[in-house]
Amino acid sequence: MKRILIIGTGLSSIYLIKYLEEQAQKYGWEILVADRDINSVKEKICPATKALELDVLNDNQRDKAIKNSDIVVSMLPVSFHINVARSCLKYSKSLLTASYESDEVKEMHDEAMAKNILFLNEIGLDPGIDHMSAMQILNRIKRAGHQLLGFESFTGGLVAPESDNNPWHYKFSWNPEKIVRAGQEGPAKFIQEGKIKYIPYNRLFRRTEIIEIDQFGKFEGYANRDSMKYIEKYKLQGIPTIYRGTLRRPGFCRAWNVFAQVGATNDSYIMDNSENMTYKEFINSFLYYSERDSVELKLYHYMHIDQDSSIIEKLRWLGIFEDTPIGIKNASPAQILEHILNQKWKLEPEDKDMVVMWHRITYKEKDKDIPSILTSSLGVIGENRKKTAMAKTVGLPLGIAAKLILNGQISVKGVCIPTIKEIYDPVLNELKEHGVTFVEKESHA
Amino acid sequence: MKRILIIGTGLSSIYLIKYLEEQAQKYGWEILVADRDINSVKEKICPATKALELDVLNDNQRDKAIKNSDIVVSMLPVSFHINVARSCLKYSKSLLTASYESDEVKEMHDEAMAKNILFLNEIGLDPGIDHMSAMQILNRIKRAGHQLLGFESFTGGLVAPESDNNPWHYKFSWNPEKIVRAGQEGPAKFIQEGKIKYIPYNRLFRRTEIIEIDQFGKFEGYANRDSMKYIEKYKLQGIPTIYRGTLRRPGFCRAWNVFAQVGATNDSYIMDNSENMTYKEFINSFLYYSERDSVELKLYHYMHIDQDSSIIEKLRWLGIFEDTPIGIKNASPAQILEHILNQKWKLEPEDKDMVVMWHRITYKEKDKDIPSILTSSLGVIGENRKKTAMAKTVGLPLGIAAKLILNGQISVKGVCIPTIKEIYDPVLNELKEHGVTFVEKESHA
Repeated sequence: MKRILIIGTGLSSIYLIKYLEEQAQKYGWEILVADRDINSVKEKICPATKALELDVLNDNQRDKAIKNSDIVVSMLPVSFHINVARSCLKYSKSLLTASYESDEVKEMHDEAMAKNILFLNEIGLDPGIDHMSAMQILNRIKRAGHQLLGFESFTGGLVAPESDNNPWHYKFSWNPEKIVRAGQEGPAKFIQEGKIKYIPYNRLFRRTEIIEIDQFGKFEGYANRDSMKYIEKYKLQGIPTIYRGTLRRPGFCRAWNVFAQVGATNDSYIMDNSENMTYKEFINSFLYYSERDSVELKLYHYMHIDQDSSIIEKLRWLGIFEDTPIGIKNASPAQILEHILNQKWKLEPEDKDMVVMWHRITYKEKDKDIPSILTSSLGVIGENRKKTAMAKTVGLPLGIAAKLILNGQISVKGVCIPTIKEIYDPVLNELKEHGVTFVEKESHA
Repeated sequence: MKRILIIGTGLSSIYLIKYLEEQAQKYGWEILVADRDINSVKEKICPATKALELDVLNDNQRDKAIKNSDIVVSMLPVSFHINVARSCLKYSKSLLTASYESDEVKEMHDEAMAKNILFLNEIGLDPGIDHMSAMQILNRIKRAGHQLLGFESFTGGLVAPESDNNPWHYKFSWNPEKIVRAGQEGPAKFIQEGKIKYIPYNRLFRRTEIIEIDQFGKFEGYANRDSMKYIEKYKLQGIPTIYRGTLRRPGFCRAWNVFAQVGATNDSYIMDNSENMTYKEFINSFLYYSERDSVELKLYHYMHIDQDSSIIEKLRWLGIFEDTPIGIKNASPAQILEHILNQKWKLEPEDKDMVVMWHRITYKEKDKDIPSILTSSLGVIGENRKKTAMAKTVGLPLGIAAKLILNGQISVKGVCIPTIKEIYDPVLNELKEHGVTFVEKESHA
């Protein structure tokens, strides 16, 4: 009897566990779900599944659990993966994660090959479904002998239209900490028509482009980190345009930019006396001193926000001009902002989230003068606060890939990401059965 | 016969060496000037002074030179001071530097006390004359029993009016590397009327204030790092306002802000293909792509620069829209910008620089209703590219303090900065003889 070990039962684990439980019943496998918090495990599993209390940093506990399994799926934060990977190497077990491949894990490639195992990373949503759906199209166009001129790709985790009741048209369906700090890792980098472009953090939210997706409406996209890394990942050497971005509803970025500009997203220092500050005092600490003027007007003046700007409704709705206490000791500006947003942008129990992905590929067919444009879009709506579209689109690819590996339908070994046809074809096929379906459209430039 | 060892013969050493040579003749001392580059030493010394080729990272060479001296003045970059300080401790020699006191050096306080020696740091211009001139006034006001309400202090190294022939009204009289990167160490921090204020880098050059100094005209000041550290340094606990800043001529910051905003001052990454880039291509890499539009107009549009703005003349004058090759391999944006500015902002052989310092102290006398304002200002004009006001105001305080220590007129021991009356009174007194004189003015708020 084959045994699957799932480590970590965070937000995104619900669909992964459910999917693998169904497969286990079908194929006669056993599932073991491990977490530091045994109660979090018990809430999420069916009676046939075993729960294990596991401190993943305890070498003996971790080794024992991995040794007794046939395959491991880690849903832990990325920093824990190296320990899990070492134990997997030790006992020759394949490992799947939805995290970005770290350099440390990448270096294990030869050893993994030698042990005949697969370390498959970046098999969630973004990274994950983005790689697979893009590669399937890009390789199809390449195989047809066409010349690739541009690749643009955007993903967003948002709130579904039916649960959208705030002026930001946004709620948290994913790690709020990462969302508040997004974009601060260094300048965004991409190529357009052969020219390399750099956008520093302070301009990031004003260099957006509008994208319209059938059935889902209008979005705005801002550049996501270093797009040029994807030239190598996707084998796009020589492509004149490559751009990856993040989607929000129109107007979001312009308002978010106010926080970025005043310094409220900064996570590099602790604010004096943060525990006794109010929301209004937090904002005021970034503004010039005035004996009389209101914090609200000072902010509008400082940021050149007109009286009729839609930014005003968004800022007021967050309550940032009110005397609400913050109450967090030794907090950075980013931590305080995250705290404020958590009160406002959290999903209610029956709220539905939405995941949107959109690719645009421009290419030239040999005998044609004008370039062709292929767009491919995905929209997934969640069920409620627990069963989110985010959890589904992160968890299902992991689950499907784990099944395919256990059944011998994926035979690749070493350390890799799902840019390989042998992986993306069957995973994307099965995702369709779960409503994760891309819609393609052809047009001309 | 007493022996003074001067280590390092960079730009600021010329006045220090000359001053100590004169004192040596008067008191019968010997001067030894050491540098890795013996020719740089020989250019700067008179026949009576000895030159020494010294690799300061070579423990034997350094120990030997220090062992044979009575006092050491280090003009090396701050990172080398720890090695010099260790040797000074070993042989019980006092040490002077114009650099900020590092934590490592601070920790040597007890040992220095035990060995009966003085490590006097921050005794140049800024830090140096700023500490001394401020403390002299602040202590006078405190001794008179007045209540301190505010302390503001600004310093600038600029070009003298008679050599000012560019629209920025600025030339480099100090380390260009530090000037291009200034302000990026973290948000500027200060208190105004009891409220702590933070300014992130992207707003720093738009939060200036205009300052007028008699005989020297108008300047603008922007906030300099963490002003709140000076509460402890200057014993100003409870003061409602404290602000330290850097001076430029009006209009400078607004134009400089263009470079800060587009990302041209960033030193954290290497630009692709920098060696084959032109000035124009450098600027274009921060702007959106356009098939037709000029880089110049794209920049004005992106940064909201009106056609009649004085920023335009400044940017054009730097030649940044021209096809001039850069020719530096693996350069960061900051390195490329520094290279461009070095061609334009360098002092010509007969150019004079200017150092300006300005303090404003607000205080309340017991029996008076309205607060008093005392301003104290200093302006020093250089002689030429070698004999700069910058070299004079950095080197003379060091030289004077070294003399006073050797003559036993400064008896304090341990690790300290010149906020002590026993140091600042005689140093400031003697500086007056060299034309380094503050002018005070009293008024009412």
